[in-house]
Amino acid sequence: MTELRLAINSERIGRNLDRLAEFSDAPSPAVTRVLFTPTDMLGRQFICDLMQQVGLQVRLDAAGNIFGRWLGTKPELPPVATGSHCDAIPHSGRYDGTVGVIGAIEAIAALRESGFQPQRSLEVIMFNAEEPTRYGIGCLGSRLMSGRLTPPAAADLRDEQDETFEITRTAAGCVGSLDTVPLPAGCYRAFVELHIEQGPLLEQQNLPIGIVTAIAAPAALRVTFVGEGGHAGAVLMPQRKDALLPAAELALAAERAARELGGADTVATVGILEVHPGAINSIPSRCEMTVDVRDIDLVRRDQVLTSIQQQAASVGNRRNVATTVTLINADPPARCDETVVAAIENATRAANLPSLKMISRAYHDSLFMALIAPTSMIFIPCRGGVSHRPDEYASPAAIQAGVEVLARTLAQLSQE
Amino acid sequence: MTELRLAINSERIGRNLDRLAEFSDAPSPAVTRVLFTPTDMLGRQFICDLMQQVGLQVRLDAAGNIFGRWLGTKPELPPVATGSHCDAIPHSGRYDGTVGVIGAIEAIAALRESGFQPQRSLEVIMFNAEEPTRYGIGCLGSRLMSGRLTPPAAADLRDEQDETFEITRTAAGCVGSLDTVPLPAGCYRAFVELHIEQGPLLEQQNLPIGIVTAIAAPAALRVTFVGEGGHAGAVLMPQRKDALLPAAELALAAERAARELGGADTVATVGILEVHPGAINSIPSRCEMTVDVRDIDLVRRDQVLTSIQQQAASVGNRRNVATTVTLINADPPARCDETVVAAIENATRAANLPSLKMISRAYHDSLFMALIAPTSMIFIPCRGGVSHRPDEYASPAAIQAGVEVLARTLAQLSQE
Repeated sequence: MTELRLAINSERIGRNLDRLAEFSDAPSPAVTRVLFTPTDMLGRQFICDLMQQVGLQVRLDAAGNIFGRWLGTKPELPPVATGSHCDAIPHSGRYDGTVGVIGAIEAIAALRESGFQPQRSLEVIMFNAEEPTRYGIGCLGSRLMSGRLTPPAAADLRDEQDETFEITRTAAGCVGSLDTVPLPAGCYRAFVELHIEQGPLLEQQNLPIGIVTAIAAPAALRVTFVGEGGHAGAVLMPQRKDALLPAAELALAAERAARELGGADTVATVGILEVHPGAINSIPSRCEMTVDVRDIDLVRRDQVLTSIQQQAASVGNRRNVATTVTLINADPPARCDETVVAAIENATRAANLPSLKMISRAYHDSLFMALIAPTSMIFIPCRGGVSHRPDEYASPAAIQAGVEVLARTLAQLSQE
Repeated sequence: MTELRLAINSERIGRNLDRLAEFSDAPSPAVTRVLFTPTDMLGRQFICDLMQQVGLQVRLDAAGNIFGRWLGTKPELPPVATGSHCDAIPHSGRYDGTVGVIGAIEAIAALRESGFQPQRSLEVIMFNAEEPTRYGIGCLGSRLMSGRLTPPAAADLRDEQDETFEITRTAAGCVGSLDTVPLPAGCYRAFVELHIEQGPLLEQQNLPIGIVTAIAAPAALRVTFVGEGGHAGAVLMPQRKDALLPAAELALAAERAARELGGADTVATVGILEVHPGAINSIPSRCEMTVDVRDIDLVRRDQVLTSIQQQAASVGNRRNVATTVTLINADPPARCDETVVAAIENATRAANLPSLKMISRAYHDSLFMALIAPTSMIFIPCRGGVSHRPDEYASPAAIQAGVEVLARTLAQLSQE
């Protein structure tokens, strides 16, 4: 592949990222784009248009995942796929996920413009709802595709308005049965995802490319405390069953569990804590919260998770409030495929870029694609290692390097 | 006044309370009715209609407070006023405040039907926004009327959408300058408010009537913590500046301060705690909370308040997050007027109902009316002492007794 002469159009990538960021329910630079909202529908159309502009054949599956295929000279062989997501949690940034979709489309454009012709077909996938914003579960699209989430379970997922995914996807124009979404193992020769690191290592070591060898194991709980409301002036302290106070205790207990029971790589986060009824002069009667626990070590993660579950029950019991603990997900870690890792390594050499083999601590569609396809990821540095914030940033040069490595990786895998 | 023969139409009161409860943004039996929302506008119209049906002359002041006057035979004398509020915090009940408006209208109806003719005019007032839901400050209408809140400060109050009270009241059809709202001391001979107790004492002692001699002193803080957001998987624990965790510590500290520094009557409540951005996999970057502190002892309340303010600063400092503490209000307690208390006592004797002199721990428009008029309150029992909940309940018999005592009190004060 060394003879490939690629011109990655960095300016076009930046312009497309900026245009996509305009489809947002939060004021710039913050981005909020939640599955199948009117804003998301516009963003999805924008991505379909970009795919068509570079000559990809676009199709939707019944769940709303978007596929764009460049037919190879041997279309009977399993294709090579790449892609990521374009949804954005409330008040986040413009690079998480989007770099792996818009960057993939640009990689295809650069390959086409170079005169390259793939043997295996190349496919860009935009997975829907990688972020758990709407349904409380991450990687909805790739989970379904990989079979880790069954079609009936997906159909019955409910958002905050108690609207099912089945209803929402139908209203959003997705046709066909969800039963058609899962793909068999072996349907793709490989899956490669380009993504910002969401951590500080590449920036700290001044390296342009990370090659992911494993993806950490995330788990999440939903905890609900139901106590007794009442007027903040009228119910004396000993008579109260305040639902917020056990939630406050649990948030602090989760932090302690991660720090004391976990290792350096263990993290626990209470990202959602909602108080009902939520009035200045009203004792909280119900409190709902989530606890997200991650680690690269599955056993240690589950020890921390179990400790938090036990403490939820004991604090609720001590404060005499009803406590419900639900496991939202507890996914196993993914090992990346050696042949795909080797292809990325070859690509970095061809592009003359140094790289680091590393572990992904964040959740990705690759975690699920790894169940049905040989998978790895290409990481690029992001400023300060931050993501999920309006000031999330990856430089044009960093993105350009990532897209070049992606293009070379796809080219190589498509000829094998 | 013993010769007054009053027929209180308990069935009509219940029907009107039920009809008013239908103007709600929460499903029955919960009631949500927030100032100047479309639902509240319908509720306000319903109250105006009721006032007109019993022959009251209805007018609005520039803030949207509603007045209904029965002209006395000596209209030049300061009138006697009664009333309460009809707004309802999210997911509360149908008796708090409403009993004092619909009950007052029924008291007027009963007096009229008995053939009674007042010398001083009698006036029913529906105060707007007694609850702090929309603007974060309680008793907006009576605060303005009493001069405790200045018209420019009221005009500039902002709701969550950053819409000013000036804009909202204009859109709601209130005309004239807010400068016309404050009333001079002495404008009313007396003010009497009928209200559910919102505490358990009357029910426990099986007494139908409470006569309020003082109203407890409430105070409230708004505390904002601003830390650093980020991806829940990617930022390790030692690097975090999570904005929720100091809020959790402060909620527990407020509980401790009330229990350990305060007395039996000291209460502290965190009723609002909002987490930004509020996603399962996002570290909280900002947290806003309120702390409501009340006591019948002003010095002790302020000690607890000061302790909470200090702990907010110290926990924010220790966790390296920016902390802002704002005093929303810290009102002094009100003493009730002896002549009005005596008039209520006479009324209970005339109605042959036993009573208890008591303190109000909850916030009322009477707290502010006491600044411009001799004031007291009539309490009736409510089930379990609960309020601000969908299961808030006062029996038809309890309400009937309260309305009879109110009618007899108004009659007596109107002839003095």
